[in-house]
Parts: sequence; C-alpha cells; structure tokens
Amino acid sequence: VDERELIEKYFLSQALQRDDVAVGIGDDAAVLTPPPGKQLVVTTDTLVEGVHFFSDADPAALGHKSLAVNLSDLAAMAAYPLWFTLSLTLPKVDPAWLKKFCDGMFALANRYRVALVGGNLARGPLNITVEAFGSVTPGTALLRSQAKIGDRVFVTGTLGDAALALQHRLGKLTLSDADARAVGERLHRPTPRIDAGMLVREFSSCAIDISDGLGLDLSRVLAASGVGATVALTRLPLSEVYRRQMPSVGIDGALAGGEDYELCFTVAPDKLSFLRDAVNRFDCPLTEIGEIVAGSGLTIKDADGNPVELKSRGFDHFAA
Amino acid sequence: VDERELIEKYFLSQALQRDDVAVGIGDDAAVLTPPPGKQLVVTTDTLVEGVHFFSDADPAALGHKSLAVNLSDLAAMAAYPLWFTLSLTLPKVDPAWLKKFCDGMFALANRYRVALVGGNLARGPLNITVEAFGSVTPGTALLRSQAKIGDRVFVTGTLGDAALALQHRLGKLTLSDADARAVGERLHRPTPRIDAGMLVREFSSCAIDISDGLGLDLSRVLAASGVGATVALTRLPLSEVYRRQMPSVGIDGALAGGEDYELCFTVAPDKLSFLRDAVNRFDCPLTEIGEIVAGSGLTIKDADGNPVELKSRGFDHFAA
Repeated sequence: VDERELIEKYFLSQALQRDDVAVGIGDDAAVLTPPPGKQLVVTTDTLVEGVHFFSDADPAALGHKSLAVNLSDLAAMAAYPLWFTLSLTLPKVDPAWLKKFCDGMFALANRYRVALVGGNLARGPLNITVEAFGSVTPGTALLRSQAKIGDRVFVTGTLGDAALALQHRLGKLTLSDADARAVGERLHRPTPRIDAGMLVREFSSCAIDISDGLGLDLSRVLAASGVGATVALTRLPLSEVYRRQMPSVGIDGALAGGEDYELCFTVAPDKLSFLRDAVNRFDCPLTEIGEIVAGSGLTIKDADGNPVELKSRGFDHFAA
Repeated sequence: VDERELIEKYFLSQALQRDDVAVGIGDDAAVLTPPPGKQLVVTTDTLVEGVHFFSDADPAALGHKSLAVNLSDLAAMAAYPLWFTLSLTLPKVDPAWLKKFCDGMFALANRYRVALVGGNLARGPLNITVEAFGSVTPGTALLRSQAKIGDRVFVTGTLGDAALALQHRLGKLTLSDADARAVGERLHRPTPRIDAGMLVREFSSCAIDISDGLGLDLSRVLAASGVGATVALTRLPLSEVYRRQMPSVGIDGALAGGEDYELCFTVAPDKLSFLRDAVNRFDCPLTEIGEIVAGSGLTIKDADGNPVELKSRGFDHFAA
C-alpha cells in the first residue's frame, strides 16, 4: 500500500460531503468556504499512546474520542461544528486497526455532520492529532474570561465517571461488569456537549469544557476572569455508579479526576430565569454547583460550609 | 513548571498580534475573523523524531522547518498566509531546546506575519504537528487537478540540494564544509515559496509543492489531472554544488530526493508571455522542464530524448 491508497481506502470513502468544502482531501491543502459573516473557531487536541490511552485501547473508541475531545472544545465556545483534520502518526499499517479507528471517528463525525477535509499520515510512535473547526456569530463565543462576580456556576451531566473507569482499569477499584461498562463508556466514548453548548449561549457568556478536572478547569476560568468562586462539594452531580463508590473513592474523582468532557459555565443572576425556561431543551442534566465571588481562586466547601483541601485539583501534563 | 507557564513563557511572549484574531492562545479554542469574501486554505504537516529528523537536530532549524513545510503547502495553493497552530508532543521539558525551537519558528512566522493562534502541548515521543491557514479569492487556488495537455511544466529554484545534504549527513557523500553548509540550509531551513506562489497564480491554475521528490509529486499532479507529462532530465535546475557532485551522485537526487520545497506548476501556451513578463518579479529562478501530454504517467527523457528509468521517483512513508 502507499499513502494515497491508505487515504482513499480508509478516509476518502467515509468523508462526509459538504457544500462548503471546495477542495477536500487530496490536494496540498483544503479550500473551504467559511459561513459569511461568522467568526471561525479553531481547536486542536492530541492523544498519545501510553499517555492518553493504553496500547490495547479499542481503536473504534480511540477514533471516537480523538474527535470528541475536539468537538468538546467547540461546544465550550458554543460553536457550530463544520470541519476537521486528522494528523495520524502510525508505527505500522494495521488494516484492521485503521478500519475500526475510522469507523469510530466517522460515526461521530457524521452524527454532527462535521467533514474530514485534510490531514497527514506519517510513520512513528502512535500520535493522534485532530483539529476541529466551527463557526459562531461574531461576539457570541463563550469565553473563559467572562465570569462575573455574582454569576452562578453550572455543570452539565455528571462528574467523575471517567475517573472511576480509569481507577478500575488500573486495578485500584473493583466495579461490577455493568458499572464498569457504564463508566467505561464515559471514559472511552465521551459525548461532546455540542447541543448543550449552543443552548448555553442563550444565557451565558462564559464556559470551559472539563477535560483536566473541574477543580483545575474552573480555576482556569477564575484566573482568566480575575475572580474567585465557591463550590459546594455536596452539589457536584454524580452518577448512580459514582454514588455507590463514594464510600471507597471519596469525592476527589468528581472534582479532579478529569476527562469528564462536561461543560462548566456561569450565568448572571438576571439570566437565571432564561436557564430555568430552557432546562427541558437540554439533553443532559444541568446542576448549579457554586457562585463566582470577588477575589481569586477556587474555594471548595463541605456540607457544613467549611472550606476543604483536596489532594489534587486536576491533571497537568507538565506539572513539576 | 505547568503547561500554562510553558505556554506563556515560550509561546505567548512571541506570538504576533493580528486584528483578525479575536481570541488567540489560552481559551478552549481560537476565535478568528476570516477575510470577507475569501476562501480559507488549510493544511497540516507533521515532523517525527527519527523519521523526519535526527535526534540531534538543531531545535531552531526544527522550529523553522515545521512551519516552513506548511507554508510551502499554502504557497502551492497560492494562498495568503494568516495563522497557524502548533501541536507539540515532548518527551520532557527542556527550556534551552524550547527556547531555540520557538526562536526558529517565530522568526519565520514573523517574516510572513502569520500568527500562532493555538495548539496543544502533550507528553510523549517528540512529534511536531503544525496546521497553517491562508486565504484565497474564491476559485483562484492552484490545484493539482488543473494540468491540461499542452501546458508547459515549470519549477522554482533548484532541485536535489536537500537530498545531497541528507546523503552527506548519512556519510554516503563527502562535501566541503562550505558546500555542506549551503545544501544543509536547503534541508534544514527550506524557504517556503509564498511570494512565488502568489505570482504564479497570475498565469497558472495548477501547482504542487515538491516535498517527496519531483518525480512523485509531479506524478500526483498527472494522476489528479488525468494527463501525462514528459520531463527533460537535462533541464532540471541544479545548484552549483549539485553540478559538482553530479559525477558521483547522478541525477536521482534532483528528481526523487525530496524535501526541495520548491513549487512545480504548469502554464498554458497562451499564458507563457505573462510568465516571461513576470520573471523579474520572482525572488527565485523559474525553469521550464517539460510538457503536459495526453495519456498518463511521467516520462523522463535523457539528453538524446530517449526515455530513462530511475531507481526511485520519490519518498512514500507507507510504500510496501
């Protein structure tokens, strides 16, 4: 096989056609027609073997996840997804692996009608870099810097399930088969909150997606906005699986486990009624977990309202 | 250090400011304002340690080259460069390495006023993926598919110098220090033919950048256009260094060595006078090397006009 054959067989065959793609895969570059009058939203994320996933990871789940983590970033900006590129560095050509990887990736791509428009194939240690493109009406992107004192802090879905799945995989926790499957889906096939992101825009200006743990990601919002926040531990939204494991794992996984790919956003007091009116249009739960306050940094409070210290607030690749 | 500190110290500090970047590095995604009425041109290329470069490669040259190979793709579309993203997977944080890498990358970025708008940092085997963005007036991108029978085939600059540098590095060829330096610059710090690409658009609709060897890259044009071509070996533009080495290395390096990052483009007979009028506006030589003909595939002819077979026509990562 040569590179061209690989591209035709695995990628061109499944790439969605869109009218705004004048030149897709196969030239020196893609030629795209941005939606008139919109801003372009661009994000990229990399998954590395042995760092972000185990060597025996299901290739279909990897294909899904490598795109999902990027769509999650678009969701956190309230962007409408358009296109993506894939830079895939492979140690060898394994047709069965590639087929499953592409099946997983394109199943998600087609669900959101996001088109693969280009990329790169190279030899080397397995490295998956996706770049995703979306559009927003100018000035409506949800930004980390827009949290204001008095805003309420919300999260979508539930927190900590991916952390449980990782603990289970590492043998530090034993889950029933059904529970392991449920949280395994959260770790391996996260759902990007695209639809939620576009609804959030109606009553919020500030969001982040929770990839490295609520504690760390919310702290990034606070730093960018020059404010502080208090969050009530007892309010963190937990799945039934997580609740059952609480006695042994505690709350850290929900606060700092990472890989939730939920949205954390803030809502000004005068917009809360809009949120309440919109709740039924969301395909996921929304939970108020705290408040933006003057000052800096994140204060976590226990059931009695006393501040608590946690072992970790999230994951940083380059932390000392 | 944490990821944020790395980004601020090495990347934010040098990233060019542009008015069309509403949100740059530091949020979940970049928010960009595409030039009104233009098409967006997007390309990505990856450099992998041990595959595309040696482990002792000069980090400043790597920074230059990782962006240059992407700008070269924009040049081959005749796109005006706007922005880029960098996904950098690093085995460890080496401040001296990062500083030099960024210096090399930003020196080139600033020359073309192309702004770093986002990216990703991860741990793992060294992998450098850049994605570059440019703009074109709708319908004016130079495409591989637009070669027509009767068109003349041109290349910019000289061919084979990077191949000589690689042979020298591998100990298969001994060059004088001055010659090694000259061709080493071609291998390690290729000049993207951005300005040439924009001039070529005035009299051409078809171009490719020569990254894997003229033979292979021109063959891609022929396949995409459904035509053949003849190229005269004696017309390949060679540097003085290459000419001196011809007795020992032959012509294969110029035809199939790869990493030239020159443009190969075609010109219809009725546009040749426009090319002649424009020659002095180019900052590099232009050389006519052959002609597009009916049929398929590339025919190489020797000084007597007889077809010749070559050992290789270029580099394919996934060739069997």
